[in-house]
Amino acid sequence: MLVDLRSDTVTRPTPEMIEAMATAPVGDDVYGEDPTVNLLQEEAAQALGFEAALYMPSGTMTNQVAIAVHTKRGQEVITQQGAHIYEYELGMMATFSGVVPRFVPAPLGVPDPEDIRKAIGRSIHKSPTGLISIENTHNIAGGTIVPLDVLKGVREVSLSEGLPMHMDGARLMNAAVALGVDVKEITQHFDSVSLCLSKGLGAPVGSVLVGSEALIKEAHRYRKMMGGGMRQAGVLAAAARLALKDGPARLAEDHRKTRTLAEALSNAGYGVDHAAVQTNIIYVQVPDAFQKAEDLKSKGILVNAVYADSLRFVLHHQITQEMLEHTIASL
Amino acid sequence: MLVDLRSDTVTRPTPEMIEAMATAPVGDDVYGEDPTVNLLQEEAAQALGFEAALYMPSGTMTNQVAIAVHTKRGQEVITQQGAHIYEYELGMMATFSGVVPRFVPAPLGVPDPEDIRKAIGRSIHKSPTGLISIENTHNIAGGTIVPLDVLKGVREVSLSEGLPMHMDGARLMNAAVALGVDVKEITQHFDSVSLCLSKGLGAPVGSVLVGSEALIKEAHRYRKMMGGGMRQAGVLAAAARLALKDGPARLAEDHRKTRTLAEALSNAGYGVDHAAVQTNIIYVQVPDAFQKAEDLKSKGILVNAVYADSLRFVLHHQITQEMLEHTIASL
Amino acid sequence: MLVDLRSDTVTRPTPEMIEAMATAPVGDDVYGEDPTVNLLQEEAAQALGFEAALYMPSGTMTNQVAIAVHTKRGQEVITQQGAHIYEYELGMMATFSGVVPRFVPAPLGVPDPEDIRKAIGRSIHKSPTGLISIENTHNIAGGTIVPLDVLKGVREVSLSEGLPMHMDGARLMNAAVALGVDVKEITQHFDSVSLCLSKGLGAPVGSVLVGSEALIKEAHRYRKMMGGGMRQAGVLAAAARLALKDGPARLAEDHRKTRTLAEALSNAGYGVDHAAVQTNIIYVQVPDAFQKAEDLKSKGILVNAVYADSLRFVLHHQITQEMLEHTIASL
Amino acid sequence: MLVDLRSDTVTRPTPEMIEAMATAPVGDDVYGEDPTVNLLQEEAAQALGFEAALYMPSGTMTNQVAIAVHTKRGQEVITQQGAHIYEYELGMMATFSGVVPRFVPAPLGVPDPEDIRKAIGRSIHKSPTGLISIENTHNIAGGTIVPLDVLKGVREVSLSEGLPMHMDGARLMNAAVALGVDVKEITQHFDSVSLCLSKGLGAPVGSVLVGSEALIKEAHRYRKMMGGGMRQAGVLAAAARLALKDGPARLAEDHRKTRTLAEALSNAGYGVDHAAVQTNIIYVQVPDAFQKAEDLKSKGILVNAVYADSLRFVLHHQITQEMLEHTIASL
Repeated sequence: MLVDLRSDTVTRPTPEMIEAMATAPVGDDVYGEDPTVNLLQEEAAQALGFEAALYMPSGTMTNQVAIAVHTKRGQEVITQQGAHIYEYELGMMATFSGVVPRFVPAPLGVPDPEDIRKAIGRSIHKSPTGLISIENTHNIAGGTIVPLDVLKGVREVSLSEGLPMHMDGARLMNAAVALGVDVKEITQHFDSVSLCLSKGLGAPVGSVLVGSEALIKEAHRYRKMMGGGMRQAGVLAAAARLALKDGPARLAEDHRKTRTLAEALSNAGYGVDHAAVQTNIIYVQVPDAFQKAEDLKSKGILVNAVYADSLRFVLHHQITQEMLEHTIASL
Repeated sequence: MLVDLRSDTVTRPTPEMIEAMATAPVGDDVYGEDPTVNLLQEEAAQALGFEAALYMPSGTMTNQVAIAVHTKRGQEVITQQGAHIYEYELGMMATFSGVVPRFVPAPLGVPDPEDIRKAIGRSIHKSPTGLISIENTHNIAGGTIVPLDVLKGVREVSLSEGLPMHMDGARLMNAAVALGVDVKEITQHFDSVSLCLSKGLGAPVGSVLVGSEALIKEAHRYRKMMGGGMRQAGVLAAAARLALKDGPARLAEDHRKTRTLAEALSNAGYGVDHAAVQTNIIYVQVPDAFQKAEDLKSKGILVNAVYADSLRFVLHHQITQEMLEHTIASL
Repeated sequence: MLVDLRSDTVTRPTPEMIEAMATAPVGDDVYGEDPTVNLLQEEAAQALGFEAALYMPSGTMTNQVAIAVHTKRGQEVITQQGAHIYEYELGMMATFSGVVPRFVPAPLGVPDPEDIRKAIGRSIHKSPTGLISIENTHNIAGGTIVPLDVLKGVREVSLSEGLPMHMDGARLMNAAVALGVDVKEITQHFDSVSLCLSKGLGAPVGSVLVGSEALIKEAHRYRKMMGGGMRQAGVLAAAARLALKDGPARLAEDHRKTRTLAEALSNAGYGVDHAAVQTNIIYVQVPDAFQKAEDLKSKGILVNAVYADSLRFVLHHQITQEMLEHTIASL
Repeated sequence: MLVDLRSDTVTRPTPEMIEAMATAPVGDDVYGEDPTVNLLQEEAAQALGFEAALYMPSGTMTNQVAIAVHTKRGQEVITQQGAHIYEYELGMMATFSGVVPRFVPAPLGVPDPEDIRKAIGRSIHKSPTGLISIENTHNIAGGTIVPLDVLKGVREVSLSEGLPMHMDGARLMNAAVALGVDVKEITQHFDSVSLCLSKGLGAPVGSVLVGSEALIKEAHRYRKMMGGGMRQAGVLAAAARLALKDGPARLAEDHRKTRTLAEALSNAGYGVDHAAVQTNIIYVQVPDAFQKAEDLKSKGILVNAVYADSLRFVLHHQITQEMLEHTIASL
C-alpha cells in the first residue's frame, strides 16, 4: 500500500472526471471559444461572488497575474511571513512585476491589521505599497485559517488606504469548510482571489483567478504573456468543473482524518502543534526530518521533509480510512 | 457546414487522443512523477535529436523560457522581421527577460546570415547580442521555410561569434515534411528548439522545449516562475504523445490541400503570392479584409483578417476534402 | 591642434561655469533642498513650457524614467527607426520598464503620423501601445528635424487614441534654433520632454525631464530607483543653469560651421547627404570608415566611425573657426 | 545656528574640494577619457584592494549594479534584516534585476553565518540564492559594525557554496576607523564593495563600486543602462578624490562626538541603546518622534524621525564642537 501524504496536489482524476474530460465540448480558448472553459469560469465567478473568472494552468500563475494587475514597478506587496507567493513562487513577483515583498508577522498564519497599516510605505525614501495579499489557508503555518474578523480588519486598512487586496486562496475552500461559512463570506473582503482546483478539490490541473470584469480583462493580457493561453483547455476544465462542484463537500472528511492523524502523531511522540492543525495539513517537528521521511517511505508512506527538522503530512480525498490506519500503525 | 480555417490551433482532440487521455497513468509533474509527461519528453527529445525536453502549456512559454535561459538582462535577440516571439508574445521578452529584439530583413521569412553577422552588438555604446532566434516555418511570412543552407550559414555566424541559437519551431514539422527531410537535419543547427503539439500536429494543449540537459534544468526553473508547472499534466501529455507520433504524417495532406486552395483563390481573383505558399498557410491580399472575413463567415467559412488588407487561411487535419470543396465553391 | 568632432558631449566647462560651480549654494537634493538644483528645475520647466522639471545625471535616465512613468509592463513604445532610446540605451526600456519598441519608418528621421496610427496595437493577440516617443533632432538620421506639422499630426493621433507623447529632445534646442521658433512651439505637442544640457548646450553633466507636476512626482521615484538621486547636485546644476541660459544662442554658429564643413567634405569627395545636414551633425559615407577615422586622428581630428562605412562629424561651441579651417585643410 | 544631524549626506563641499573641482582636467567619461575620474577609480581600487573601480552618481546605483552583475533573474539575495538595498532602494533589485531579498536576523546589524547557510535556496521548489550582501556599517541598526570574524564566517559559507559576496559599504570607512584596521582587512572577504564618497567622507556626489576587472567591465554596461554614464564627471571626481584621501582621517572625531552626544541624550532621558552606538549614528526611542523632531527644529537642530517612535542623529565633519554643545544644551 502506498500512502501519498506529501501534498493534496498528488490526487489522480476520478472516473467521473475522466468521463467528463472525454466528452466535454471544446474549442480554442485563446479565441475565448472553449465552451467548457467558459462554463467553468462562470461557475467559479458565481461561486466566489465575483463578476468574472479566468482559468490558468497553475496557482503560481493566478497569483502572479493578480500581482501584476494590481501593482506598478518598484512597489511593495504586503503579505504574511512565509507566504507562498514569496516562498514557493521563485521570485516571479520581482522578475515579472518588478515588486518586492514586505512581510508582517503572522503567528499561525494570522496577521495583525495594525501591523499591515504600519508596514505601508509612505515616505519618498521608501517603496510605496501597491497591494495587500493574504494567504488563506496559510500553507507554511500549517494550513491555518485567517479568521473572518481579521480579514475584516485588514479590509478596513485596505479601504482607508486605497490599496487593493488579493487572496492567495489556493486552499480557500478548506477555510470555508472548516469555518462552516459560505465561501463568499470570506471572499467579500477582496478585490481578487485565486483558487486552486488541483489541490484538495481534486482536479488534475488548474486554478482560477476571480475579480471584476476590468481586472479579468487585464489578467487575460498577463496570462498570455506568461504563456498561460491554452488551446482546447476544455479537456482540463471539464475535470475542474467537477472539482469545483463536488470537491468542497469532501473536505470535511479530509479535516476529520487530519485531526485523527495529528492525535496519533502526538501519541507516537512526534512534536505536533495542535493549535495549527485546523484543516488538512500537519507539520511535525522531528530531529532528523530527511532520515525520518526515508524511514516512512520504506513503509510505503510518503511525506515531505520541508526543513531539516520538519515533516509535512497533507490529507486529501484519495487517502482512504484504510490508508490512514496503515499510516497510524506505521508510526 | 462549418469550415474553420482561422488557424491550425482550432483542431479538436481525436477519439484516439480522448481514449489516451482517459487511460494514461498520471502523477504530479511538479515532482517530476507523471509517467506520461516523462514519456512525452523522452520521445520529443529523441525525435528532435536533443538530450532532454520539457512540456509546457503553450508555445509562448517554450519560446520565452528559452529566451530567458539563453540571455542576460539588457541584451538583444536577433530575429527575423515579423517573428512571433515579438509580434504575438506581447512583450514578454522585455518584461520577463529584460531583452529587446533586433530585426534583420527576411523576405519570405528567410534571413541573410550576413545581415545577422552585421546586426551583432559589439560596441560599448550598444546592447550586446545574447541570442539568435529563427522562426521556421515563419508564420507571418506565410508559413514559409528557412532553407537548410541558410540555417547552416546562420549557424556558422552563431558558432564564430559564440552566440546560442534557438528555433521557434512551432510549425517545424511542416518545414521538415515540406522539405522531405528528417527533422533532425533542421534541428542539428540549434541549441534549443520549441515545437508546438497543438498546431498542425493536433494535440489539444502544449508545446515542448528541447535542448541539452543543463538547458532543460534551467528551463524547469523558469517554467515554474511563469506558472507552467502543472500537476497531473499527463492527461494532456497522453494526447500530445499521439500528436507527436501520428501528426507529422498527416501534414503532407494539409500541404496538398493548401496548394489546391491557393490555386482556387487565385482563380477567384484573390491576391495570392504563390511563392509564399509552402506549407499550410495562405495569406491573401484583399481590399477590405474585415468585411471579406464577415462575408465568408456567413457562408460557414472562418478565416482571420490579420490586417486591414490581408486574410489568412490555415489548413489542418480536420479540414476534410468536402470542406475544402465547399470553401472553393464559396469563393 | 586637437579637433574633437566625435560628439557635442565632449565640451569642457567654460570658465563661467567653473566659477558658478565654485560659488553656487548647495544642499542635499535627495531631500529636495539644493537651491541651485531647484532653480535649474524651475528655469527648465519655464523655458520648455511645463509645470515641473527634474534634473538627472544623463539623457538615458531622463528618457528611461519617462518611459517608465508613461507605460505599463508588456506595452509597446512606438518610435522612429533608429531612435536613441533603442539604439543607444542598451535595452533599459525592456529591463526596467518591461516594454518593447515598435518602429515606424522615418526617412531623414521624420515619421508619418499615419504609420504611427497603423502601428498602434489593438488586438488581444498583440501588445497594447503605451507611448509614442519622438526623437527630435534625430541623431542617427543626421541631427535632422521633425517638422512642426508632422508633430501636430502625431499629436492628433496621440490625442485621438488616448496615448501619451514623449520627446527625446536631447538636441531639441538645435531644432528650435534651426527652425527659428520658440522651443515651446515644439514642446507644446508633448506630455513630457527630455533635454540634454551636456550636449550642444555645453554643461559638463546632466539632463532635465519636464512634464506635469504629477508626472514629475512619479519621475522622482523612478529616478531614485535608478540611482539618480545625487546629494549636493547643485555643483553640477550651477553649470547646467548657464548651459540652459547661454547655450541656445551659440547653436546657430555651430549650424553655420556644420554647413561649411559639409560643403568642404563634399568637395573633398566624401559622400554627404546634404538634405540630412540640418543642424550640427554630418554623417559621411566612406568605404573604410575605421581606417579613415584613424587617418584623421593622425592629423589631430577625432571623429566617430559609427558603422563600417560611415563617419560622424559633430560640431559644438568649442570648435573654433581655426579648428574648422584646420579640419577642412586636412581632408 | 543650524545644526543638521539628519544625515552625513548633508555636508557641503570644502574650499579645497571647490578648488579641485574648478581646476581638475576633465574629459568625456562615457568614452573613458576623463582623467580625473580615471584617477579616482584607480585610487579607490587601490585603497580597497581590488583590481578596478567604477564611479557612479549614488550608492543606490553602485549597489544595484553589483546585484545585477552577480545575479540571475528569479534568484534571492541573502542579506541582513533592515538592509539598505531593500529598505531604501525602492524595489530596484526586483524591477531591474528581477531578484528578491531573503533576510537573516541581524541583532545590532550582525548576521550569524549559520543562518546564512540555512537560508540558501537548494530545493527545486525554491528560488536559488544568487548573492550574499552584507551592509557594513549597518545603517538601520545604528551604524553598527559587522565584526571581522563574522565576515570571515560568512566568507566561508560563500566559498563553500560557490556564492559571491557583496558589501554595501556606504559607511565602510567608519567601520575600518572604529575597528582601527586597514580597510582591506574588511574588504578582503568580498567580491565587490560599494563605498559612498558623499556620506561621512564628504564629497558632494558619488559612490564607487570596486571588484575584479571582469566585474567592473560588466558593471559599466549596467551603469550605462541605469543612466549613470556622466560626461565631464571629473568635476565631481575631483572632490571625490579629496574625500577618499582626507575623509577617513576625520571619522574618528565624528565617532568621538557621537559618543558624547549619546551620553548627553541618555542623561536628558532619551532612550539610547549604547551598544548600538559604534560609529557616527544614534537612534533614539521617544514617544512621539515626529513632534520631537519639530521641537528640535524650532531650536535649529535638524534630525530625522525615521519611525513614529524613533529619531536618528548622524554626526559628520561639518558638525563643530560648538554645534555639538548647542545641541546638548538644547535637549
